[in-house]
This record gives sequence, C-alpha cells and structure tokens, in this order.
Amino acid sequence: MTTSTTPRVCRGIGEFRTALAERLAAVPGEASLGLVPTMGALHEGHAHLVRLAREENAVVAVSVFVNPLQFGPDEDLERYPRTLEADLELLARCGADLVFAPAVEQMYPDGEPLVRVTAGPLGAVLDGASRPGHFDGALTVVNKLLNITAPPGPVPFRAYFGEKDAQQLLLVRRMVADFDLPVTVRPVPIVRDADGLALSSRNRYLDAGQRHAALVLPATLRALAAGELDLDAARARIDAEDQVRLDYLVVVDPRTLAPVAPAPGTLALVAAHVGSTRLIDNLAL
Amino acid sequence: MTTSTTPRVCRGIGEFRTALAERLAAVPGEASLGLVPTMGALHEGHAHLVRLAREENAVVAVSVFVNPLQFGPDEDLERYPRTLEADLELLARCGADLVFAPAVEQMYPDGEPLVRVTAGPLGAVLDGASRPGHFDGALTVVNKLLNITAPPGPVPFRAYFGEKDAQQLLLVRRMVADFDLPVTVRPVPIVRDADGLALSSRNRYLDAGQRHAALVLPATLRALAAGELDLDAARARIDAEDQVRLDYLVVVDPRTLAPVAPAPGTLALVAAHVGSTRLIDNLAL
Repeated sequence: MTTSTTPRVCRGIGEFRTALAERLAAVPGEASLGLVPTMGALHEGHAHLVRLAREENAVVAVSVFVNPLQFGPDEDLERYPRTLEADLELLARCGADLVFAPAVEQMYPDGEPLVRVTAGPLGAVLDGASRPGHFDGALTVVNKLLNITAPPGPVPFRAYFGEKDAQQLLLVRRMVADFDLPVTVRPVPIVRDADGLALSSRNRYLDAGQRHAALVLPATLRALAAGELDLDAARARIDAEDQVRLDYLVVVDPRTLAPVAPAPGTLALVAAHVGSTRLIDNLAL
Repeated sequence: MTTSTTPRVCRGIGEFRTALAERLAAVPGEASLGLVPTMGALHEGHAHLVRLAREENAVVAVSVFVNPLQFGPDEDLERYPRTLEADLELLARCGADLVFAPAVEQMYPDGEPLVRVTAGPLGAVLDGASRPGHFDGALTVVNKLLNITAPPGPVPFRAYFGEKDAQQLLLVRRMVADFDLPVTVRPVPIVRDADGLALSSRNRYLDAGQRHAALVLPATLRALAAGELDLDAARARIDAEDQVRLDYLVVVDPRTLAPVAPAPGTLALVAAHVGSTRLIDNLAL
C-alpha cells in the first residue's frame, strides 16, 4: 500500500526517469504506469483522475507544472495558484507514487522551446480562438511530459485527462494518434460541487457573488440538454446574468468540434468570464 | 552476420514494432538500435549512414518514406525517385536488419495530420524561407518515425542524419532536446563524388551539362573556406555560371543559423537551382 505515504517529489527530468524505472522494476511482470498531468492547485476533480490511475496501474505519477507556454500575455500565469504542500497531501490520500514538479528552467533549459507542437485547425476554434496559442503551448508540454514519462516498451502506459477541458482532451487524443505516441489516453468525467459548478482550480478566484452567478453555466447546459431551451434562449439566459460575460455557447460534434444541431451524441460547450475569471464547462447531450 | 541477406521489409507500423522487438529480444544484454530515416533513392551517402549505424548498434533499421508533408505544392513530390528494389540491394550490402517502408495511408491514416510539429524561427530562414512548411513537414515525420521506432527504455537508441541537410540536422537536434525524445542524434559527414559534388538523390535529375555546372557549388565553398574569395565574390562566381540560379550563399553560426563573418567554426551554406533541380551543399570553415 502506498496510499498513506507522501509521494516522492522529483524536480529534475533525470531524477524522475530514474525513480520511474526503479518503481517499475519493483513490480516485474505486472508493471504498468499511469500519468496524471496537472498544473497543481489540485481539487477533487484531480483526485478522481489520480484514483482512477491508482486503480488501473501499478505505478502512478502526477506531474505538477504551471506551463508558461499555454498562458497568453494577458492571462493569469502570475496569479495562477501554486499550492504544492496541499497538493502533496491530496496526492498522498489518493495513493500517487511519484510527483514530477519541475521548475520552468528544468522543462525549458534554453528558454522557450524553438521547436513546438502546433494544434492545427482544431486548436484555432472555441477556446483556441479566445486564447491564441493556448493549445499549441498545452500540447507542447503534454508531448514533453509523455516523452519524459514513457516507460519501457511493453509496459502499459496510460495518461489521464479530465473531460472538463473537452477541447484539450480531443487535441491530446489527436496528438497521440498523429504522433504515434505509445500511450493510452483515459478520459475522466467532470466532477461538480453540490451546487453543480464544475470543479476548477480557477474557482478559487471567485467571490461569493461571482460563484453564485457562475451557476448559470451548468444550469444552462442542463436546460439545453433537457430540451428546455434552444441555443439562442440559452445564450440569452447567460447574457442576462450580471457579472457573467459569455464567450461562447455552442453544440458541436465531439470529434470535429464542428457546430451541429443539438442531438444525442453531441456536446454542449460553454466558456464565460465571471468577473476576471474565465470558466469553461460542458455537457454531453 | 546479417550483411549478406536482404533486410526484412515492414509495411505496417505494428508489424515494424513487432519485428523491432523480436530483433532486440534476440540480443539481450547488448541490445541497441540504430535508425536511419530516409526517403529512399539511396546512394553512397546513405550507405555511410547505414554502415555507421551498423558499427554502433546491434539492430539497424532504415525507414524509406517519401513524406508528402515536406514537399511544397510546386515541388517534386510526384517525380521524386522511388527505387525500393535498388534500395534493398544497397541496404543488404550495408547490413541493415529491417526496412520500414510504409505507404502514405499507413503513416497518415486519417489524411494529413491535424496536430503537427512546427520548426519555429530556425525553420523559417534559408531553406525554410525558400520552402515554406518544409521543415514543419520534415520534423513532423521524423518525430513520428522516432516514436514508432523507440525501443524499450534502457536500450540505446541512435538516429543517423547526414550533414548535407545541415539545417535539418540542427532542427532535429533542437526537436530532440525540446521534446525530450529518448534518442541520440548521430551526424554523418557529407559524401562527395570524385568531382566534388555532394551526393544527393536529386543529382539523378541533372543532365551532363547541368551536372558539370553544379560543380561550381562545391568549388565555391572550397574557395570560400580557403579564403580565396569573400562572400560577394563567391556569390558572383556562382551567378556567373550559366544554368545555375543561386538561392542563397551564407556563412552562419552553426548553432543559430545567424549570419556571421567567415571564421573557423562557422559554416558556409549554399542552395541553388540547376535547371529545375534544387541542390544544397555546405562546408565547415
């Protein structure tokens, strides 16, 4: 049992790779590896990812890295919460074995990387339209993390991503296929607070009034899914909420992100600013 | 000894990976893997790559794939020579174990990949300026080939690239560092015909007069290296040659491709059209 001990924290790439190899060598014949890439500021949504990884793998590693590449110049890189002590407590409870928490200089020793991943057309719409370069930066670091973590050939390797970042999940799947990366992508459903708000590290930016206002997002998604509102009415409902500024509310084909009429198998996606905090949510119809 | 037998040809990614694993399992304790990525139409320059790989590795794989992504719309994708039978004879003589020769549909089963590698500023100058998108396409397929080929963790993995494509070599090194790819890049010096022309699959496009005219390229590089010509005079010499249209002649810092004054440790790079054939060459000063 590893569930009660604090996971080992590795700061350097070489140290992390060595620790992974040691842990995997300790479970010969049944070795498997789960990676949960995160930016830290962990909440119960992350805990679900780690617990699923724990159920499915002999060794569980969690990366904690606030990746500058995926933040725009006017975004919240500086104020993004860094809570490593609390993160480690949560990860100990969830049974993570290893935590890879590199400094920026360890991931990008020569400054920002010259060669990068580009997300292409699927990264230019929706969140990619609102956050230019975001998905290029996110895929660039996920590709690095997968390469750093990838275990010896025949060992099953699974990486866990939350469904809340639906566009990111689609793009990671696409990258894994397009790059022939030796990893299985495991999606994990959204975790919500009792009031329906999807868990997010950015929820801690919200004051009480903003948090109440933000509930219009999941409520509108539910009404859309139930057929109680059409898209125009759903948008109007969000627009009517003080303190909430809608970025987009769309229904898309989940494989292409192309807008489609609401129907079973489609996905409703929403993004909005609540105060200065940008939130996203989604619901399968 | 594997040097006298025709290498096994694998068409599918899964078939190639299985064959690699089998060959590596047959040399336990001393397993190592060399990959020589090529576009086929092999010549003695490629043979040098494969022979070096043979000296340094227990298992040698050569990929033969004319990658559409790295050809521009007006380039020679259609007429690029495909000579697999002759390639296999050369590879048998050089002792390659496995040849990975996928169809385009096997490398890009969903059409052109959506998520790609982007070469960044080092891919936008020189050949990248003349061939927009070329290095993005080249790095995208090299990344795939490295991911497809990468052996189990502790097995040394080396990939061999010719120094003739100096900018490509620099970008591959940069990608391996920026992506944390588990491979060692091994550069291999240019091989020249007796008359000094650098070997290239595209030399076979040249008629006798063009081939003679093309000799101005290595001759001018040698004169530049010997200090017999300055850059302006060297450019004028190439411009004076009928049938040769200079694209660029520059002296650069080999780590950054920034133009510098000719000096020891710098690199002279030339690209020119000879008839409709684009040739490149370079020489360390």
